[in-house]
Amino acid sequence: LIAKTDAAGGPQLHPEALAFTSSLELDRALLKEDLVGSMAHVVMLGRQRILEPKDARAVRDGLGQLWLSAQAGTWAPAGEEDVHMAVEAALDARLGAVAGLLHTARSRNDQVALDLRLFTRAQCADALKGLAQLVSRLLEMAQEHADTMLPSYTHRQRAQPISLAYWLCAYAAMFSRDMKAFDFALDGADALPLGVGAIAGTSLPIDRDVTRELLQFSRLTENGLDTVGDRDFALDFLYAAARCAVHVSRLCTDLIDFASSEFGFVRLSDAIACGSSMMPQKRNPDLFELLRGKSGPAVGDLMSLLVTLKGLPGGYNRDLQEDRRVVLSAGPALCANLRALLLGLGNVQFDKERCLAALEGGATQATDVAEALVGLGVPFREAYQAVGTLVAKAQKEGLPLSTVPLEMARAIHPGFTAQVWGTLDPRGSVGRKVNEGGTGPASIARQMETLRQSARLAQTRAEGVPSLEGLFKRLSEVGI
Amino acid sequence: LIAKTDAAGGPQLHPEALAFTSSLELDRALLKEDLVGSMAHVVMLGRQRILEPKDARAVRDGLGQLWLSAQAGTWAPAGEEDVHMAVEAALDARLGAVAGLLHTARSRNDQVALDLRLFTRAQCADALKGLAQLVSRLLEMAQEHADTMLPSYTHRQRAQPISLAYWLCAYAAMFSRDMKAFDFALDGADALPLGVGAIAGTSLPIDRDVTRELLQFSRLTENGLDTVGDRDFALDFLYAAARCAVHVSRLCTDLIDFASSEFGFVRLSDAIACGSSMMPQKRNPDLFELLRGKSGPAVGDLMSLLVTLKGLPGGYNRDLQEDRRVVLSAGPALCANLRALLLGLGNVQFDKERCLAALEGGATQATDVAEALVGLGVPFREAYQAVGTLVAKAQKEGLPLSTVPLEMARAIHPGFTAQVWGTLDPRGSVGRKVNEGGTGPASIARQMETLRQSARLAQTRAEGVPSLEGLFKRLSEVGI
Amino acid sequence: LIAKTDAAGGPQLHPEALAFTSSLELDRALLKEDLVGSMAHVVMLGRQRILEPKDARAVRDGLGQLWLSAQAGTWAPAGEEDVHMAVEAALDARLGAVAGLLHTARSRNDQVALDLRLFTRAQCADALKGLAQLVSRLLEMAQEHADTMLPSYTHRQRAQPISLAYWLCAYAAMFSRDMKAFDFALDGADALPLGVGAIAGTSLPIDRDVTRELLQFSRLTENGLDTVGDRDFALDFLYAAARCAVHVSRLCTDLIDFASSEFGFVRLSDAIACGSSMMPQKRNPDLFELLRGKSGPAVGDLMSLLVTLKGLPGGYNRDLQEDRRVVLSAGPALCANLRALLLGLGNVQFDKERCLAALEGGATQATDVAEALVGLGVPFREAYQAVGTLVAKAQKEGLPLSTVPLEMARAIHPGFTAQVWGTLDPRGSVGRKVNEGGTGPASIARQMETLRQSARLAQTRAEGVPSLEGLFKRLSEVGI
Amino acid sequence: LIAKTDAAGGPQLHPEALAFTSSLELDRALLKEDLVGSMAHVVMLGRQRILEPKDARAVRDGLGQLWLSAQAGTWAPAGEEDVHMAVEAALDARLGAVAGLLHTARSRNDQVALDLRLFTRAQCADALKGLAQLVSRLLEMAQEHADTMLPSYTHRQRAQPISLAYWLCAYAAMFSRDMKAFDFALDGADALPLGVGAIAGTSLPIDRDVTRELLQFSRLTENGLDTVGDRDFALDFLYAAARCAVHVSRLCTDLIDFASSEFGFVRLSDAIACGSSMMPQKRNPDLFELLRGKSGPAVGDLMSLLVTLKGLPGGYNRDLQEDRRVVLSAGPALCANLRALLLGLGNVQFDKERCLAALEGGATQATDVAEALVGLGVPFREAYQAVGTLVAKAQKEGLPLSTVPLEMARAIHPGFTAQVWGTLDPRGSVGRKVNEGGTGPASIARQMETLRQSARLAQTRAEGVPSLEGLFKRLSEVGI
Repeated sequence: LIAKTDAAGGPQLHPEALAFTSSLELDRALLKEDLVGSMAHVVMLGRQRILEPKDARAVRDGLGQLWLSAQAGTWAPAGEEDVHMAVEAALDARLGAVAGLLHTARSRNDQVALDLRLFTRAQCADALKGLAQLVSRLLEMAQEHADTMLPSYTHRQRAQPISLAYWLCAYAAMFSRDMKAFDFALDGADALPLGVGAIAGTSLPIDRDVTRELLQFSRLTENGLDTVGDRDFALDFLYAAARCAVHVSRLCTDLIDFASSEFGFVRLSDAIACGSSMMPQKRNPDLFELLRGKSGPAVGDLMSLLVTLKGLPGGYNRDLQEDRRVVLSAGPALCANLRALLLGLGNVQFDKERCLAALEGGATQATDVAEALVGLGVPFREAYQAVGTLVAKAQKEGLPLSTVPLEMARAIHPGFTAQVWGTLDPRGSVGRKVNEGGTGPASIARQMETLRQSARLAQTRAEGVPSLEGLFKRLSEVGI
Repeated sequence: LIAKTDAAGGPQLHPEALAFTSSLELDRALLKEDLVGSMAHVVMLGRQRILEPKDARAVRDGLGQLWLSAQAGTWAPAGEEDVHMAVEAALDARLGAVAGLLHTARSRNDQVALDLRLFTRAQCADALKGLAQLVSRLLEMAQEHADTMLPSYTHRQRAQPISLAYWLCAYAAMFSRDMKAFDFALDGADALPLGVGAIAGTSLPIDRDVTRELLQFSRLTENGLDTVGDRDFALDFLYAAARCAVHVSRLCTDLIDFASSEFGFVRLSDAIACGSSMMPQKRNPDLFELLRGKSGPAVGDLMSLLVTLKGLPGGYNRDLQEDRRVVLSAGPALCANLRALLLGLGNVQFDKERCLAALEGGATQATDVAEALVGLGVPFREAYQAVGTLVAKAQKEGLPLSTVPLEMARAIHPGFTAQVWGTLDPRGSVGRKVNEGGTGPASIARQMETLRQSARLAQTRAEGVPSLEGLFKRLSEVGI
Repeated sequence: LIAKTDAAGGPQLHPEALAFTSSLELDRALLKEDLVGSMAHVVMLGRQRILEPKDARAVRDGLGQLWLSAQAGTWAPAGEEDVHMAVEAALDARLGAVAGLLHTARSRNDQVALDLRLFTRAQCADALKGLAQLVSRLLEMAQEHADTMLPSYTHRQRAQPISLAYWLCAYAAMFSRDMKAFDFALDGADALPLGVGAIAGTSLPIDRDVTRELLQFSRLTENGLDTVGDRDFALDFLYAAARCAVHVSRLCTDLIDFASSEFGFVRLSDAIACGSSMMPQKRNPDLFELLRGKSGPAVGDLMSLLVTLKGLPGGYNRDLQEDRRVVLSAGPALCANLRALLLGLGNVQFDKERCLAALEGGATQATDVAEALVGLGVPFREAYQAVGTLVAKAQKEGLPLSTVPLEMARAIHPGFTAQVWGTLDPRGSVGRKVNEGGTGPASIARQMETLRQSARLAQTRAEGVPSLEGLFKRLSEVGI
Repeated sequence: LIAKTDAAGGPQLHPEALAFTSSLELDRALLKEDLVGSMAHVVMLGRQRILEPKDARAVRDGLGQLWLSAQAGTWAPAGEEDVHMAVEAALDARLGAVAGLLHTARSRNDQVALDLRLFTRAQCADALKGLAQLVSRLLEMAQEHADTMLPSYTHRQRAQPISLAYWLCAYAAMFSRDMKAFDFALDGADALPLGVGAIAGTSLPIDRDVTRELLQFSRLTENGLDTVGDRDFALDFLYAAARCAVHVSRLCTDLIDFASSEFGFVRLSDAIACGSSMMPQKRNPDLFELLRGKSGPAVGDLMSLLVTLKGLPGGYNRDLQEDRRVVLSAGPALCANLRALLLGLGNVQFDKERCLAALEGGATQATDVAEALVGLGVPFREAYQAVGTLVAKAQKEGLPLSTVPLEMARAIHPGFTAQVWGTLDPRGSVGRKVNEGGTGPASIARQMETLRQSARLAQTRAEGVPSLEGLFKRLSEVGI
């Protein structure tokens, strides 16, 4: 009952007003963060002698008991307007008056900022791990498909021959960039907000650096007025998640198309092919469709927080509570998506014959032929026109480029020699693009090495983020 | 078990794939819609003799039992990938093989479209009722505050004198426009999708018009391919909700500012004033801040669905399942917000003295004085300049305009007569704006009458939407 | 110079501040609207004897001269902070002091609202015309392709046989819904804002109804405080445009896929097929890709205005000026897109053979077979399973469903009779779906009739919107 | 004419299709980027002996001539579908056939990616410079206002005493975080895309590292398929710009409120105060309102590109051209906004007396009193309740907290000693919060030092970005 009378506005507060303003249903998900944050705070208060050490220990231990009770399922935060008050009320019920000491030199404004930063920090770590796994999986597939040839597409038209490894590395490169975005978000979240009170700091002799070290943050936030109204770290996370979701949507569009009867490049295993309630013949790529669709909420969540923040006065405003809805769901949703994508990738089989057949039917080698002419000294624009004429002629006669007789070519431009003609083999085409970023095997090997290293770095970075469990363990034992 | 084997992709489907693609957790909220829709479908099948009447009756009655069980809390949809399959499985457990007849001439594609349209239709009705109540409340307040004078603001600067009734009517006019937007959304939702099957219709001799009449839709959807991929009705609802949320945010900005010490126009009653965990003196307008903040998710939800729909191939794609997350939450959130706003408005007291004092301190009557000059034949631009000079002079000498001696004015322009000077009284200023849309009492009376009528119309429209309970009752008894 | 000294803040205003706050570059596009609105205003002032009739006539005629000068290219608004001031300054240069009368009983707040409403009203009319043309074109194509058979797709997998006419009607139905959205936006824009002054109305004896009738608006806005801060009509337009752009993106995804080598359903004519600077063989559907991409700005514009409006205090705030950027570009962009789509549709040829071939290779008739079993009294779920088993067996043996021997089918279920087997013909499948919204020819004919009527209605509605030229002509001659 | 025939799709391309697909109007803004990129490309081709050195020099010099002609205003790109083709056509007109060599080993897909990256890189530098200036200005003001006392606000209610320096540092801290976001965007843009051709690389013996070094990029993009379809660097920029715009909107809300008659903390100088066309007394903060409103387009632009990218197949699709509209305008808009904000900040005067008066009227020292009690050993919750009771009593009796007689306090709690009472002085309150991030002078000094350093770093980073002019100069002279 502490909460309802003291914090939320007195006993006269209308029950509907309390229900409407309460964030408990959502921020129950922040319980661990709240307990760990409070433990660190009270340890600091004790060390600074703002509280008697024995009182500080009692409160710390009481918080530890709540953690264990929650884990055992014998207690859950309830009956208060938010998780902070629910914890304090439970503490009061167990410890009596000494529980009242916990809120010394602290406001819910800096407390919730701490909980959200702890949460976001952990979500960044999870995202980095998920991306590292995803990139690793794509690289394994690339290893396996170094020789699977297929057309690349621009404008959804067959463009040039590539290996499947090249296609896989492209997506690995996208996801590797997402690692950097989450790394940036992690860096943003990695500052301790606690100690700035409601907005101005506190006159009590706290030491923020002690709390910082206990919770393993890299730095302190700089200014209290800014700190309590700042949700940039959450925006950064939501942005990274939205960008990543858009990348996933692109990969899924490719996979969904590849799985169609028309492309036929990919066959879904029974583990992921979904049926239809009305059409018994269907093998639908629902998993990839859902993943594509989930770019909607990811972008929507980012927009949601941007709108909430827009035009707010500086400092804390209760509008900020709407951060909860998006922040608490975006991280777990992202990780679930990455896991589902991993499952999906593990259950597609590429049909090497159909991939290759798509290359042979068309004119995807045209650029290679043109470049071979250029290699003989023909200006590119002239080469381009000669090949264009040839392709048009071949199409008119219904001939794939690979079957055009050399004489027909020579009649168009004298540069079409047997050597030039040799460029029509797709595997040769892929192999000849030896420059950085190209399709050649050595270039692919370099790409894979770089990507593998990015994945390793992301994994290492993620592992460096302290877990809540680890913090709890340490804070349970640390001296006061 | 029907569901897992037949619909979702065979027994080999990976449990994680099933879990990821399952929508059950969300669409459990569509249970009533699903049952009512299925009852209407099976009644139609029986009447068309596609099913034996006794079989149709058995299935219809079985669905009715599920409704009652769900209401009694003895059954809830579980263990299947979506609410449709959960219902069918429960039916199978109760009725045996005859349950299998339910899915005749239907696909989940048209079934889910039906459930969502029934849901959206009901949400539109709720929104209309909530808005009607809100507008009525604003009008009651306007009635009470016909004589409360305060400054209007442009650029957050005091502009001209108005009555509080005028301010309240402005917001009532906004919300009255929102009624039209929900009316538009309701019209969009009010078409029966059932009967178009997976995408192409069915060769069985169904009669969609029978189902339409049973479910009281105004019309049929026109084309099956369009129908199964169409979520425009949901977009329309989300748009109306977002626009309304932006209006709420504006009203709340005004109220939050008015409740500040600086304005002091409004005092929050104890029923809604929130405290601070650190600053005991605070009486915070949290309820209005949260309402302002909730414009974030409202806009985010609209963006979410727009992104999900963007670029999808025609027809049904599983991406559409992401509609559930936003559609199912946006309606209830909107209604909760309208209720909270109603509560909030019932718990603000306007301080008439401070409102009036804000008028007297400044120069808000300047336009009136200029217009009085114009009434004497002075060109507006000349009148404007004369008053501008006067106001500048008054400000320099620290005089509110109402205390400027007439001679000082006359020295600037001869048109400043005693009669012109009479326009300085705010109440007179407000009363003189007799045109449509102005602040004069007769104009306010007309505004209020128009708004009252809009509210009545919205209420009537909402009551015309059949409730699920009403549909259930009728479908339970209707002859087959 | 009137403008710079009087309106924008005195002669001391910093040139950079003036440049930054000036909207002239954008709202020059509102010149016609501004002139017409001012002409109506001054005619009303004259009729009400607020101005001497001869003065009113002089100003009205001066405005008319500006219109003609602008049309002749001899004058353009310049040198002032916005189009309103530029017009007044030009008028002053031509008429002298009498020009100063124009601003009597008016504020730029209601004036810009008028200009934007006139603009939006016209854009709605243009959008309706563009959509009517588009739907008509789709229906012409549908007429032509009543017998072109192709698979419909769900999950980008072949689903059931349809005619191309059915596919075209689906998109026509989408765009027909867009007409309703623009109709709604038009209704929102169709209210005269002029006469509410800066925020509170005016004490001069204007008659808003006279102005309303002169400008052919259906009604007056209700409340001045609401009116000057209201941009709902612009939001409604932007929403309709965004929804329409998403529809366009879906049609384009289909067309882009259909134009791929893999589908091969569509061939682009030389009039729209784009090449590659590097790959001579390409025939790229750039036009459709760009149209798909333009859903981005359309949604972005809606988002932009929602964010600008969020949390604004009631009444006019200068933030609203940011409406200009999106409102002025969204309408013309939409119309350009609709025209481009029309051009694109006129330059695609469907390859009937490849469309048909896609039907024959697979098992899209499976639902028909299942429904034929149901027609013989087999429960749907049993029929579904029998067909599923059959399809699986056929796929295993590499047989398209149409070539499966009847005995093989009978071995699975005795219901597979010769009559049931007759359902394998795609044309028969399409024809059998006779219900409303289905693929059958009579259903298609009804769909087309309904859509044709929608197009006619939209065209009529659009033609009912007065043109600026028409208003100008009438206002030039009307008696004062 | 090269362009129209070769690149865009042959001479039969419909003029409207060409007009619709042309990006020239927008990407004319990329002319310098395009020229510099082409110069580097041709230098590399010459050094690699893919072109004859003399030909390479001729083309390079021709490009240089175009730069000078454009600068002199004697030539501008025109008559072609995009800036790339316009440059090539102009080159052809001047040099003849040798111009055709320029496009060797290059596609417009990698070329436009280069232009956009060069553009974005420069915009990041400009943003960093603008932010550095802004932060420096805020710090200058903070220096000046170390002793200006005012209330901080939470929930728009007076909270605790702070100095204006503290408030200014809060915003400086926000903008300092924005520097990090632009730094991140700059890092993303800082990779050379050229050399990956249309999608797969090239078989010609180019050396991407030579081009990279010439254009001073830090690294090469990794994979061609990814490179040509990647706009993450643009998204990163748009995100940073949107986040920054939201920060600006918050600062402006504070300033607009502070400039109201009710707050009266700020007076606008004549250089930025705007007037009203109808109300002569107004001194409107239009500049700050517009800046707040411009958060709309900033967020809308981000949304726009996210939507365009969503669901695209991998590789290049023409949809990407829609990047131009937002990328080319967002950077300049951001910089204009930062300059306007700088101007605005230089033209506000804080009214120290009114700021201080706002502190004295209320109970903002309540937390200090409570903390003083805690300092004497009273548990925080007890102290909180005692102070709450006291504040309520004072308010009831109409007494500001500072005037409450000590006995009245002592009657509530014995801890209210004279020493505790001494905390009522706001300056003391501000000075006592000595912890990091608090309001105390030493803390402020540390904050300012940190922020000053951030500004210096941003400036340095920005200066490290090569200018287009610098690149042009170097490329004009470099040996081939």
